[in-house]
Amino acid sequence: MPKKNALPVTRAEDFAKWYQLAISEGELAEESGVRGSMIMLPWGYGIWERMQRLLDDRIKASGHENCYFPLFIPLSYFAKEAEHVEGFAKEMAVVTHHRLKAGENGLDVDPEAKLEEPLVVRPTSEMIIGSAFARWLQSWRDLPIKINQWANIVRWEMRTRMFLRTSEFLWQEGHTAHATEEDAVDETLEILEMYRSFAEEDLAMPVIAGEKPENERFPGADATYSIEAMMQDGKALQAGTSHYLGQNFSKAQNIRYQDREGQFQFAYTTSWGVSTRMIGGVIMSHGDDDGLRVPPAIAPYQVVIIPMLRDQPEDEALLEYCREVAASLKGVSALGEPVRVHLDSRPGKAAVKRWAWVKKGAPILVEVGGRDADGGNVTVLNRTALYQDNGKIANDVMPRGAFADKVTPMLEAIQQQLFDEAAERTKANIRHDVTTMEELTAHFKQKGHIGWLEVSWSKPTGDALEKVEEMLKDRKLTLRNVPQNAPAAEGACIFTGEPAVERILVGKAY
Amino acid sequence: MPKKNALPVTRAEDFAKWYQLAISEGELAEESGVRGSMIMLPWGYGIWERMQRLLDDRIKASGHENCYFPLFIPLSYFAKEAEHVEGFAKEMAVVTHHRLKAGENGLDVDPEAKLEEPLVVRPTSEMIIGSAFARWLQSWRDLPIKINQWANIVRWEMRTRMFLRTSEFLWQEGHTAHATEEDAVDETLEILEMYRSFAEEDLAMPVIAGEKPENERFPGADATYSIEAMMQDGKALQAGTSHYLGQNFSKAQNIRYQDREGQFQFAYTTSWGVSTRMIGGVIMSHGDDDGLRVPPAIAPYQVVIIPMLRDQPEDEALLEYCREVAASLKGVSALGEPVRVHLDSRPGKAAVKRWAWVKKGAPILVEVGGRDADGGNVTVLNRTALYQDNGKIANDVMPRGAFADKVTPMLEAIQQQLFDEAAERTKANIRHDVTTMEELTAHFKQKGHIGWLEVSWSKPTGDALEKVEEMLKDRKLTLRNVPQNAPAAEGACIFTGEPAVERILVGKAY
Repeated sequence: MPKKNALPVTRAEDFAKWYQLAISEGELAEESGVRGSMIMLPWGYGIWERMQRLLDDRIKASGHENCYFPLFIPLSYFAKEAEHVEGFAKEMAVVTHHRLKAGENGLDVDPEAKLEEPLVVRPTSEMIIGSAFARWLQSWRDLPIKINQWANIVRWEMRTRMFLRTSEFLWQEGHTAHATEEDAVDETLEILEMYRSFAEEDLAMPVIAGEKPENERFPGADATYSIEAMMQDGKALQAGTSHYLGQNFSKAQNIRYQDREGQFQFAYTTSWGVSTRMIGGVIMSHGDDDGLRVPPAIAPYQVVIIPMLRDQPEDEALLEYCREVAASLKGVSALGEPVRVHLDSRPGKAAVKRWAWVKKGAPILVEVGGRDADGGNVTVLNRTALYQDNGKIANDVMPRGAFADKVTPMLEAIQQQLFDEAAERTKANIRHDVTTMEELTAHFKQKGHIGWLEVSWSKPTGDALEKVEEMLKDRKLTLRNVPQNAPAAEGACIFTGEPAVERILVGKAY
Repeated sequence: MPKKNALPVTRAEDFAKWYQLAISEGELAEESGVRGSMIMLPWGYGIWERMQRLLDDRIKASGHENCYFPLFIPLSYFAKEAEHVEGFAKEMAVVTHHRLKAGENGLDVDPEAKLEEPLVVRPTSEMIIGSAFARWLQSWRDLPIKINQWANIVRWEMRTRMFLRTSEFLWQEGHTAHATEEDAVDETLEILEMYRSFAEEDLAMPVIAGEKPENERFPGADATYSIEAMMQDGKALQAGTSHYLGQNFSKAQNIRYQDREGQFQFAYTTSWGVSTRMIGGVIMSHGDDDGLRVPPAIAPYQVVIIPMLRDQPEDEALLEYCREVAASLKGVSALGEPVRVHLDSRPGKAAVKRWAWVKKGAPILVEVGGRDADGGNVTVLNRTALYQDNGKIANDVMPRGAFADKVTPMLEAIQQQLFDEAAERTKANIRHDVTTMEELTAHFKQKGHIGWLEVSWSKPTGDALEKVEEMLKDRKLTLRNVPQNAPAAEGACIFTGEPAVERILVGKAY
């Protein structure tokens, strides 16, 4: 019997189309009717809430405190850091009026309610948070300042794609100020490591942490580090960034303090963020041809119980049995937290519900029919092992007590399995042996999953780097990052022919 | 020895000034430099995070799911519900451009990047969420739809006041659709009850739940219910509202479904919200002349340990002892959750730290000096019983083991005490015996804490109600709500002289 998948398009057939279907069929998000903005539906937003909770715990545990700063930033604030505003000016939503009124063509902006100074909807908050730092900071005793905010952000993107690039998105942005360059660099790298462990441990998404080349830095930064994840089509997704800002912003915004000797010094600052883009990474890391597979650590529900209701009188007994199964999981923990169980008692056919939860990617499904209830059993489906070798659904009937014992190791194994699969795929699809542009060009001309190359380069800057960028752009490629754990470079730079100084990743990217 | 309080102005001297000082000295929030927007600092935002967590649990437990909808709402969406847009048009921030460029006077809005349709920054989300409901809703089987979002909101207020009225604020807004009027009314009232129990149980803030008069309804609603809390100056704070929208929005937005007979029917909808305004309510309900007192259920830290450091070698031993005290509270719960403990090991004088935490209103302070450590003791301060009768600070030295046993009942008693104090004050300051406008006028001419009147009225509508509103406005008074548990009305309406039909609260308000 040929296996028939839940999504009408497979990853191999059309990965971009599959991605859209995984989102719509998994009810993660939908178009809103507002340009470039999506609606995050309960399952998609639930995943974000789980990510927030886990990352927020890490942020707080490393000594950062949450604040909330204004959505609107006066235009004049941006004039202070030339490189920074240059990087964002072309994609800023600007509030110019504060009132509507009835006009000739119905409701319109009231021209008499024009703001004296336009307000920019924050594309990032360095300029508003830095102005607060400048007020707060007096003495070396006040340092370090380590704060974070969870907020919505607007960047007027011309080409948008759900989760990956939307005009409005949700994120966290950390901002810190330090007395010395060393402290600020340490912070930048500690956050990079926090993002790496969050991605790998909580999202089961293997990443490569490293420094971005100069041309890919955050506008105004002295150094930008990223975590890069390989999607199932071989493209790279920049999933989080940590910026060392040096004294650029502190000089622009007068963020300074008196040191122990009473001298005024400019602080060294950092900023760092991850966004709802991460959800796109999870979809493209773990999804299969039946839709999404959510790692248990971030699944809003880890176990979904589906009663095989028939609209008959005995259904209440069946529902009661299902409630007992749910209750039997109280007190059971997995991955360090109580197991999240959901009983789907809505009206509707059990088979339709099964496939809805498969497409959403709930880790464990528990189907309960009359025969299960009579025998004190449950029928268990594992989302990461949905089929038998013959293509039929793999059902595992077991006593409900046995299931309660099994759910913890099962969830932990699913979390590990998703990571291992993605890690193997990532490892298998990074080539380290390419040394010439001919080989590079030939490699990326292949069809299918072609992954990344890790190559030796001479770390050119300025015009020379621009030339490299152009060469790659012609091939639809970009420089990703210089992996922290890459081996030392040998021989000549693949781009310039000059002596190589480090190893850098090259690939197509989202 | 005369008691000297931590804030330079007492509540009795100048309540408005005291409120500002409680916020600034307690480091809850500060002015941002952006008109009408504040910065929520770690302690203030931490209280909001606790409120969110507790209210979110209640929202989910009652079957609502969280989503996220766009910040921007196209102007044309607002044209659909005339009364609704009329209510908000005068205070809307409008995005008209999507790019900046360098101009003659520096950076400016790029006139070539004008949006075809202006985008309103959401002042509330009925119009965008309703448009999604219209897409989602097909059949009676899809009902009810019960969703919620946590979001930032912008209303261009002319006179702003921290937490109570800011141009940007944070809130949750619930939106639901139902098959019948009865279901929608039930939802509206269940939410009102949820808000009442949240306010009273979690914020220790007694409230009166009831229906607002017609003139105070949400624009476009058929009925608006509120919880009203009495502040320490006797003014009312509307702390949460629940709206029954009837079919007004469903007809304006075409939110309809096929019933069991296949006929198209318009749904009945509701919406409801509470905001960061609640924090203002907590401050004015529980603060004293030493600053804020945070109810333990919403205190970011419930126990703060302050080592009496002296910058000497033995300090490390003292810090280690403090860490042991903190560790001894692991596993201890209060109010159903693990106790939140913070060790304040920053440099600085212990006395300065003590008063910082007193002003912030941390429920329990634990001061640890060398003598305490040597004796295995801790010195405990209770924020709600800070002074002895002689005006000195009430320190309670006890073995650290005894403190670990005592912390649970102590926190629970503080939570109860704050509620009881506020409930007694509220009860004592509502008069029920006023039957004439002369008495009413005389009552509100008194100085000091004059509270509210509960009076009989004839529930006039339209012009007659407007006349009542005008009469009250002259006296700086407003109608608050018709309490759910008020006794039946007797005699004549205090305003119109007509037969009274119900009892309504009158008072000054924020």
